[in-house]
Amino acid sequence: MKRIDNFKSIIDRYEIVFFDAFGVLKTYKGLLPGIEKTFEYLEQQGKEYYIVTNDASRSPLQLAQSYHKYGLNIIDPERIVSSGMLTKEYLDLKVNGGIVAYLGTPESAHYIDAEGRQTLPVSEVNSTNIDKVNALVFMDDEGFDWFEDINKTVNLLRKRTIPAIVANTDYAYPLSKNDISIAVGSIANMVESIVGKEFIRFGKPDSQMFMFAYDLIRERRPINKKNIVMVGDTLFTDIIGGNKFGLDTVLVLSGNTLPGDAESSIHATGIVPTYICENAVVETDGFGF
Amino acid sequence: MKRIDNFKSIIDRYEIVFFDAFGVLKTYKGLLPGIEKTFEYLEQQGKEYYIVTNDASRSPLQLAQSYHKYGLNIIDPERIVSSGMLTKEYLDLKVNGGIVAYLGTPESAHYIDAEGRQTLPVSEVNSTNIDKVNALVFMDDEGFDWFEDINKTVNLLRKRTIPAIVANTDYAYPLSKNDISIAVGSIANMVESIVGKEFIRFGKPDSQMFMFAYDLIRERRPINKKNIVMVGDTLFTDIIGGNKFGLDTVLVLSGNTLPGDAESSIHATGIVPTYICENAVVETDGFGF
Amino acid sequence: MKRIDNFKSIIDRYEIVFFDAFGVLKTYKGLLPGIEKTFEYLEQQGKEYYIVTNDASRSPLQLAQSYHKYGLNIIDPERIVSSGMLTKEYLDLKVNGGIVAYLGTPESAHYIDAEGRQTLPVSEVNSTNIDKVNALVFMDDEGFDWFEDINKTVNLLRKRTIPAIVANTDYAYPLSKNDISIAVGSIANMVESIVGKEFIRFGKPDSQMFMFAYDLIRERRPINKKNIVMVGDTLFTDIIGGNKFGLDTVLVLSGNTLPGDAESSIHATGIVPTYICENAVVETDGFGF
Amino acid sequence: MKRIDNFKSIIDRYEIVFFDAFGVLKTYKGLLPGIEKTFEYLEQQGKEYYIVTNDASRSPLQLAQSYHKYGLNIIDPERIVSSGMLTKEYLDLKVNGGIVAYLGTPESAHYIDAEGRQTLPVSEVNSTNIDKVNALVFMDDEGFDWFEDINKTVNLLRKRTIPAIVANTDYAYPLSKNDISIAVGSIANMVESIVGKEFIRFGKPDSQMFMFAYDLIRERRPINKKNIVMVGDTLFTDIIGGNKFGLDTVLVLSGNTLPGDAESSIHATGIVPTYICENAVVETDGFGF
Repeated sequence: MKRIDNFKSIIDRYEIVFFDAFGVLKTYKGLLPGIEKTFEYLEQQGKEYYIVTNDASRSPLQLAQSYHKYGLNIIDPERIVSSGMLTKEYLDLKVNGGIVAYLGTPESAHYIDAEGRQTLPVSEVNSTNIDKVNALVFMDDEGFDWFEDINKTVNLLRKRTIPAIVANTDYAYPLSKNDISIAVGSIANMVESIVGKEFIRFGKPDSQMFMFAYDLIRERRPINKKNIVMVGDTLFTDIIGGNKFGLDTVLVLSGNTLPGDAESSIHATGIVPTYICENAVVETDGFGF
Repeated sequence: MKRIDNFKSIIDRYEIVFFDAFGVLKTYKGLLPGIEKTFEYLEQQGKEYYIVTNDASRSPLQLAQSYHKYGLNIIDPERIVSSGMLTKEYLDLKVNGGIVAYLGTPESAHYIDAEGRQTLPVSEVNSTNIDKVNALVFMDDEGFDWFEDINKTVNLLRKRTIPAIVANTDYAYPLSKNDISIAVGSIANMVESIVGKEFIRFGKPDSQMFMFAYDLIRERRPINKKNIVMVGDTLFTDIIGGNKFGLDTVLVLSGNTLPGDAESSIHATGIVPTYICENAVVETDGFGF
Repeated sequence: MKRIDNFKSIIDRYEIVFFDAFGVLKTYKGLLPGIEKTFEYLEQQGKEYYIVTNDASRSPLQLAQSYHKYGLNIIDPERIVSSGMLTKEYLDLKVNGGIVAYLGTPESAHYIDAEGRQTLPVSEVNSTNIDKVNALVFMDDEGFDWFEDINKTVNLLRKRTIPAIVANTDYAYPLSKNDISIAVGSIANMVESIVGKEFIRFGKPDSQMFMFAYDLIRERRPINKKNIVMVGDTLFTDIIGGNKFGLDTVLVLSGNTLPGDAESSIHATGIVPTYICENAVVETDGFGF
Repeated sequence: MKRIDNFKSIIDRYEIVFFDAFGVLKTYKGLLPGIEKTFEYLEQQGKEYYIVTNDASRSPLQLAQSYHKYGLNIIDPERIVSSGMLTKEYLDLKVNGGIVAYLGTPESAHYIDAEGRQTLPVSEVNSTNIDKVNALVFMDDEGFDWFEDINKTVNLLRKRTIPAIVANTDYAYPLSKNDISIAVGSIANMVESIVGKEFIRFGKPDSQMFMFAYDLIRERRPINKKNIVMVGDTLFTDIIGGNKFGLDTVLVLSGNTLPGDAESSIHATGIVPTYICENAVVETDGFGF
């Protein structure tokens, strides 16, 4: 574990950089100030990047547009890998027909639509269509009535022996400086412990997230894991997940891990990043480039 | 473990009978048919009973009235021990003043009211009163907006270092023949895992429930645990809790444990009742009494 | 939560003091220096004490003798409440005959012996006596071959549908300044997750420990929980257990909770002691008494 | 979920078959009778196979030799993917120098040896070399003194902030008709809960196992996940892992899942295989080939 002052030197050491989104590129207030310089430097140096994010609320295109809206026009939807994409791949491979019931917004469900397979909010499952429901997906914490629809989900899973997929494993996400919001991963955990079944989860720290990005790279060119670095703000998802996949990792202190807590958290958890860096902003000194 | 045909012979062996409520005395359809004969026989034989129930939705008086409504007028509120009563005792001993915030109905909160201590629904906690909140209680799964108020509870517990009390540890309860409803115990588990704090739980299988009833008896007369039997429909609460407290136990098959599953569930869990009996109804043969 | 400088003022506020043993009265090095003054003051003031300890390795008499050996002759075996005593009470009430198999030293087993009931080390269970084994008890982490006998315990519990009792729920205990030793509670957790059964556990934070001491007091005189204080070094056992039972609690910083960590641990866990005090030693000033 | 009578028809539907080892190809008694016909048919039909196994006790070469010993000479070490191989890959990528301490046999450790990196049994870690220990690996449940070395492992992980790797996540394995043996995965879980750190685990159901085999295939030729089927005897590892990776799956009833329990286990867990088949033996009828 080594402290690095300028994120620039991280980019200089690797060919490809994987970024977590929340807490690294943006916060509840919007883009991380100065982060555009990082992407300029990546482009200038001919380095590739991927954004590897636990997010199933929107499609990669919509996720990219959320960066464009803030002025970071450089972000390419093809460089975004989300847990929602893994959910879509799972459904495409494993659920050929019938209905996929979901908890989430219509926007989140639209993305997992496919020919020959219908997506339906849990609220619209009823006695006439329940026998056609072939999967249940936890997409987003919004877009439904918690009391009505979480209870209905419990009973749906007691009646139908179908896979339940958690498209975002996060427990909670920051809403403002002082408040967090419960994420769909926590809701899924509650339902799982009530129905006593085994759910399928997509999202960091699971290695399938990293593999998906890794595969996108290899379709275009050969790469060695030693030349990829994962940048994240959370020891329990980004760092241990990146480490386990065999990547070098950078813990940044602009999100979940506070500067004063980094050392003690690393010691307490045994999750050791390769580097610690204040944030992922490339500081330019007027000389460097 | 011994199969017993007529619950009458259980009563004949003990001085005091502890009953679970749901699945033993009543179901989602109302009173268990014939259960009034059991209470008649108890009275006739001069045997005492206690109803030991995970319920914080109402006061013992209101719980007794719910039996009277169905015609079982014999039930005395003083013979009901609920997890809500333990919650009230805890608050009386440990929270002397300020505000007790709660998730539940006004009815459930009314019972834990006390002089010098204010109960307030979580929805009404705000920046002007949050500093006076000295405890948070999970009372009932109804009476609040799940999305708004569960999220608010998470943030309240992140801001205030106060005890969080779970007044009913049940995960779910039966709503109809085919459907169950999520109980406040599951909501509390979800919140606990998000905030990472340690909650205080009242309810079977915890021995404090049995001790409360045991103490009520001893205030009036000496008793040996060998002369008390616990009757319940659930291995994980009634039976293991009764066993651990040192009581003999009867598993009845009129609720959570289906007749065809009893043997395999006992073997799988290692939770062994002293007796198994179809239900807690005393079958009268025209001769017996 | 209030900081207290001299433990003397704690004693002055209550009629009865419950002490945890390890980290409060003694450490791996022996008696806590000065602790004898606390017991002298208790005696002088006519206050009662109980030692409430997760320990099943020895009988209360032997535990008292271990204090006498260090010169603290005042300790009365009748004032010691151990998780081993609850185990013994459970067996006396629930296991009438046959064999109780155990993991632990012969010394630990001797205490749970009873007429008509045989205790047998797991190593001596074989095809000729396995059908008579009616309970399995995890007594101590020493006195057996871990590889042979833990594996044998797993298979015994797969073959026999019997209660498994954990006589000490602690995970680990301090061995020296830098080292800890795995306690039998951790071994029991491992076995439980392999066999998938539900074990019965005795020991703090479970309220049955406090109830046992409380009952000993009430046999001799009336007492109100408000007049008892629990003193411990561990938030997760002594403090939350005492709180839940309705007692005031004192966190001392001479054991598991380091002085620099107390505030942050209390905030992180939400387990709030009534008082914090450096240690349980009564500082005498030459005037006080 | 569809019942299949003859495993032959499974092979006919796919290009590549992944097999679990224990409970599918072999049992505690040796090779599954008739399994050689399956490999003959695979070869005859020009289908590929991989053996995907949670095993870190030996190298792929030694694992292959264990099949040869039983007369199944067809098994190629290059077709074996073990959790030990993922451990080796992790160490090669992430632990460049120093000492890797391990629990296991010398045989298991030999395989993870590498130039510039020393493997050392935990028993040989001492004050002169502890500062050079850069990783701890749980390899096997044999080859060490449980009491001495598991305790030593706990203290090593409390003193050194290093990754702890679990090379086989299985809880237990069958030893004979009636007995099982605790596997190193259970020991690792116990140590993890004592030290409170986050371990890195390799083995099914984790998708990294499947990915490793999938990558081996793609190095030689293009393949679609739809053309691979995973065959296993365990819902919680083989089937849910294969499903999550996007493969079709076959539950065979020659190992952990008993014929009479399959339907109820599938319903209880919600883990649904694509097919159920008595075993993985190709039944030849004298005509087929």
